[in-house]
Amino acid sequence: MNDFIFHNPDKVYFGTNQLGHLSEELLKFGKKVLLVYGGGSIKKNGLYDSIVTIAKNSGIELFELSGVEPNPRHSTVNKGAAICKKENISVVLAAGGGSTIDCAKGIAAAALTENGDVWPLVSGGVWVTKALPVVAILTNAATGSEMDAWAVISNMDTNEKIGLGGSALIPRVAFENPEYSYTLPPFQTACGAFDIFNHVLDNYYLAGEASFDLLLEMQEAVMRTVVKWAPVAMNEPENYEARANLMWASSMALNSILDGGTVHGCACHAMEHELSAYYDITHGHGLAIVTPRWLTYILDETTASAIYRLGTQVFDVPKGLNEFEGAKKAIAALSDFCFGTLGLLPTLTDLSIDETHFKAMAEHACISGSITGPKVLTPSDVEAIYKMCL
Amino acid sequence: MNDFIFHNPDKVYFGTNQLGHLSEELLKFGKKVLLVYGGGSIKKNGLYDSIVTIAKNSGIELFELSGVEPNPRHSTVNKGAAICKKENISVVLAAGGGSTIDCAKGIAAAALTENGDVWPLVSGGVWVTKALPVVAILTNAATGSEMDAWAVISNMDTNEKIGLGGSALIPRVAFENPEYSYTLPPFQTACGAFDIFNHVLDNYYLAGEASFDLLLEMQEAVMRTVVKWAPVAMNEPENYEARANLMWASSMALNSILDGGTVHGCACHAMEHELSAYYDITHGHGLAIVTPRWLTYILDETTASAIYRLGTQVFDVPKGLNEFEGAKKAIAALSDFCFGTLGLLPTLTDLSIDETHFKAMAEHACISGSITGPKVLTPSDVEAIYKMCL
Repeated sequence: MNDFIFHNPDKVYFGTNQLGHLSEELLKFGKKVLLVYGGGSIKKNGLYDSIVTIAKNSGIELFELSGVEPNPRHSTVNKGAAICKKENISVVLAAGGGSTIDCAKGIAAAALTENGDVWPLVSGGVWVTKALPVVAILTNAATGSEMDAWAVISNMDTNEKIGLGGSALIPRVAFENPEYSYTLPPFQTACGAFDIFNHVLDNYYLAGEASFDLLLEMQEAVMRTVVKWAPVAMNEPENYEARANLMWASSMALNSILDGGTVHGCACHAMEHELSAYYDITHGHGLAIVTPRWLTYILDETTASAIYRLGTQVFDVPKGLNEFEGAKKAIAALSDFCFGTLGLLPTLTDLSIDETHFKAMAEHACISGSITGPKVLTPSDVEAIYKMCL
Repeated sequence: MNDFIFHNPDKVYFGTNQLGHLSEELLKFGKKVLLVYGGGSIKKNGLYDSIVTIAKNSGIELFELSGVEPNPRHSTVNKGAAICKKENISVVLAAGGGSTIDCAKGIAAAALTENGDVWPLVSGGVWVTKALPVVAILTNAATGSEMDAWAVISNMDTNEKIGLGGSALIPRVAFENPEYSYTLPPFQTACGAFDIFNHVLDNYYLAGEASFDLLLEMQEAVMRTVVKWAPVAMNEPENYEARANLMWASSMALNSILDGGTVHGCACHAMEHELSAYYDITHGHGLAIVTPRWLTYILDETTASAIYRLGTQVFDVPKGLNEFEGAKKAIAALSDFCFGTLGLLPTLTDLSIDETHFKAMAEHACISGSITGPKVLTPSDVEAIYKMCL
């Protein structure tokens, strides 16, 4: 078991009736607020109007950056940072899903750099310790950005999608109202759910004997919750219980309560980021295609027992089987969940992706030479896994 | 499902090799530190010497309050507050178990009052929003005080043991080294473990259908961890895994990650506080005696299914039984855990407690008229439960 530090000062207002606290929280940082949002869904569901009214009634001066992309671009981030610099913004308010919050985090970091450009921070792997405060209003259970220290920013000029991390990027306050996710269609709900699942799995002890039982237990609790409630949310989009369980699972998956000294490999995320960087596919869908293949690829005598445990604890794989047999059944159960229950197309071929860029993508996924995790993956391993996804 | 706020800014350094961060964390608040500890076990295990050396090497001026009682007295708290006022202390450093940390919290709150007396805050039910910063070095997995907003202070003049709460009481930093709990004897280990278990159970949905599945899942994960690792820690006191699982469970149980809008009843804690206020018994032991009787007392058609769920999820009670039958087996399994596995004496009679004070204790336990929870308890209910414990 490794030593670890847990520190997450984010203040979360969870539930249907919390937006009344927005102005008091924003005003702790100042009166000039940059509102960041995406394609306008917050205009349809009334959230935009609520924010404007709250700002007006409390003397907050609201500036806006709209049109944040599903994989937010560095160029959009830089536009926001320019507004912050010009208008002397005191706090960045994100209203949307993970992409919008990630964009707001990038803005908050870039706004305090000399030239207001986020890309040198991203590509340079800078750990951000200075940023404007970020407040997030979450509308989609998926990325965990509402409680984590990370943002993923894409540069479509160079086909790069890279994480930007830093303690200063943890939102100071997050509002999580499950009702805001009622309008999410089944496909987006499924992709978000699998993103959550994979965040936990990427931290799960898949190699060797686990020594931190409580951590495994809590990780399995979150994964079971996703498996149980994702299909309910897909079939009954306005089921509050389903939306609330998924939304809180999203936060639990990445607020580092489930870290506990595990060595983050994030193998699937590293491989998937290349897919969405090259093909702009939905992140959770890419993850669902990659994950079962990755598990199959790394299955050996060092990982079999943990993969089997995943099957028995999170899915319905019976106990008492031979470890390898059990692990294979676990991977089959996970595939059923992804491509049956969640209804996601199962191959890259289905998404019109062929092996053209696999070699380049595999090399970029292993930007530091390899991907760590239960098995160290070299570029040729990653390429082989991509090919299994065809 | 109720709305809730989650906010816990405590920074936890967990593991064997973290005390090197102590001086940097203390110096964030200032150079004058009041070290609070109990009966001197930290002198035996080397922690005291480490703290003194760290202070010396980093220019920290250390003041001391030792001799904190297992149920810390308001008079001891006031002694500490007087030192803080006289010496202009900048941070209170607790080194010990929950009682020591609770005492430090009381000191931190009282130090900022005009007369330095903690009791008016405690007896007045004041929610503390101003206090000196508290840093905790935990040596015993039990109360959760290392991450929570509460302190329990006793006034032996009036036989009162009451909780003092407030956002300002959450430690700013906690050091959790499972090795510090190696010297705890089996009885103290058992009592600490059951305290953890009961903190979670007091928040568990015991009435009606649960609607926050993720929360239940995580609560059960923590309770299962306690059931699994407490006997290991009792039998192998230097088993790091066992001590680490219990220590992190202690923090999880009360850092409010398991609250999620549940309505805290804390019925067992309220009833037990009277026992230790009158008889100075070990808190966790009192809880173990009270809890199975309380469950038996509240068992009816509204609670049976939840109590049964506890049995199947946390103990080995089989699924598929009649709800009442299952609930009774769950209570029996909990009793076996308390009085078999943990080896605690099962009755108040065993502790030489008779019904002399039950009426007064029951009335005081219901200080606001009744105890809330899955079943509202009046003084006569509480008295009946005490009698079941004889």
